[in-house]
Amino acid sequence: MVAKLASSGRDVAEIEIVAVRGDRWEPRQDRLAAEEPMEIRAAGPGQVPVSVAVTMRTPGSDEELAAGFLFTEGLIRPGAVDGVELADPAVVGHPDNVVTVRLLEPFDASAVASRSFVASASCGICGKASLDSVATRCDRLPPGPVVRASVVRRLPEALRAAQHVFDATGGLHGAGLFDRRGRLVAAREDVGRHNALDKLVGSKVLEGGIPLHDAVLLVSGRVSFEIVQKAAMAGIPIVCAVSAPTGLAVDTAEALGMTLVGFLRGDRFNVYTHPGRVSLEA
Amino acid sequence: MVAKLASSGRDVAEIEIVAVRGDRWEPRQDRLAAEEPMEIRAAGPGQVPVSVAVTMRTPGSDEELAAGFLFTEGLIRPGAVDGVELADPAVVGHPDNVVTVRLLEPFDASAVASRSFVASASCGICGKASLDSVATRCDRLPPGPVVRASVVRRLPEALRAAQHVFDATGGLHGAGLFDRRGRLVAAREDVGRHNALDKLVGSKVLEGGIPLHDAVLLVSGRVSFEIVQKAAMAGIPIVCAVSAPTGLAVDTAEALGMTLVGFLRGDRFNVYTHPGRVSLEA
Repeated sequence: MVAKLASSGRDVAEIEIVAVRGDRWEPRQDRLAAEEPMEIRAAGPGQVPVSVAVTMRTPGSDEELAAGFLFTEGLIRPGAVDGVELADPAVVGHPDNVVTVRLLEPFDASAVASRSFVASASCGICGKASLDSVATRCDRLPPGPVVRASVVRRLPEALRAAQHVFDATGGLHGAGLFDRRGRLVAAREDVGRHNALDKLVGSKVLEGGIPLHDAVLLVSGRVSFEIVQKAAMAGIPIVCAVSAPTGLAVDTAEALGMTLVGFLRGDRFNVYTHPGRVSLEA
Repeated sequence: MVAKLASSGRDVAEIEIVAVRGDRWEPRQDRLAAEEPMEIRAAGPGQVPVSVAVTMRTPGSDEELAAGFLFTEGLIRPGAVDGVELADPAVVGHPDNVVTVRLLEPFDASAVASRSFVASASCGICGKASLDSVATRCDRLPPGPVVRASVVRRLPEALRAAQHVFDATGGLHGAGLFDRRGRLVAAREDVGRHNALDKLVGSKVLEGGIPLHDAVLLVSGRVSFEIVQKAAMAGIPIVCAVSAPTGLAVDTAEALGMTLVGFLRGDRFNVYTHPGRVSLEA
């Protein structure tokens, strides 16, 4: 079930999933938004390119992303762009994932150095100085537990009931930790999806409850690579989401032995990886 | 219409908005999820605390967020936490927004230094080394244009029609740029909300079309502080979103002279700041 790039382009990945519909399930072809790291570099005339940022993005419009990021972050003037180079042949494997913005004036690298390692609203994780370090630091998850499909279906309602700020504002991400019978262990919310998960895992760090090898996680939004990485760090074997995973999230879950459930709505959900931990029996 | 903290706690802000419902509008009280920067520091026995990250978060469970972030980022072992200090009295104005995790063993600051300045999946902007630098670098927006409410209502359908990867996967954020009559100028999509906006603004940087003083922006999800900051850098005076803004996004839009529209669904939407740019006449 490892995501493969569709022939239509690098922005969509095609995979095989298990689609659960009520009491029935079937194998199905599905398409996911692709997610790959891209390194943004900048250089003035005669300067060696400076690595400014690595962003996890959907491939496509990469020149625009590089120029737009540097401008909206206040690192370049909009009129200073001379051209954008889309690939670095020296990068093995993913030359297309390094983009260099050439400037008509010198690039001030000190502006980058003074703003190091920061996490953001809908992010909560930031910190890979190069493509090479965008990789998981996690052991493969052990087998088990097994949860029933009927338990999986009830998770969204249980999380929603625990989100008190969402009730007031309609505007927050939630993350909930459950046991294998679907009982809510803890829930946290935040404007940032990754922050909600960090708060949840952090509560168990402070209690001395890591690893969470018996737990089921539900997040309210989509599942990116970094949600999978953070859950794997905490040892969570089953990760469920109300919306879609990215292609890289599926690849990472597959490699780490994590069960990934998405589009969990009503009596339907999709199992993207390691379906053996979901029991379809009544 | 500047957000004020509700007496119920720091996680919810109460504000006055203009609620547009079909052809009618009324002033209303509304509640928003709060968003404030938090600096995470770490220190071993006898060490001076090291600033590791600044994250935009909803206040609450701050000890858990600090410990969880350091652990899920692989910077500390889960058993290494001695305690968490919730405030630094030396920080003027927001002492609660600095959290220090005290460790039972030395903290390896080199792991932070080697992972500097990075943007992430649902983020796209990262880079404030301290609370002091979380501030806008933008001029106040000029007055105009004025758009009709009927034009505002049509924007989501026009953006949706332009999102081809969303159609295939159901899993992508979109950002669309429109003129004052609601005609689509450009649309971009990405797994990260901020990346979609950076691609859109970047396309105008490369065309030489900055500032965008006549443009209307629509983003598919929520509006965080950083969406407002990036739009303001590009000079966009009207920002619309399908979902909720945060309290800090509203404060920033108010201060910069930006019109902020949220919960744009069907024939309804809310105007959070500077409603003079929205005409309710037919």
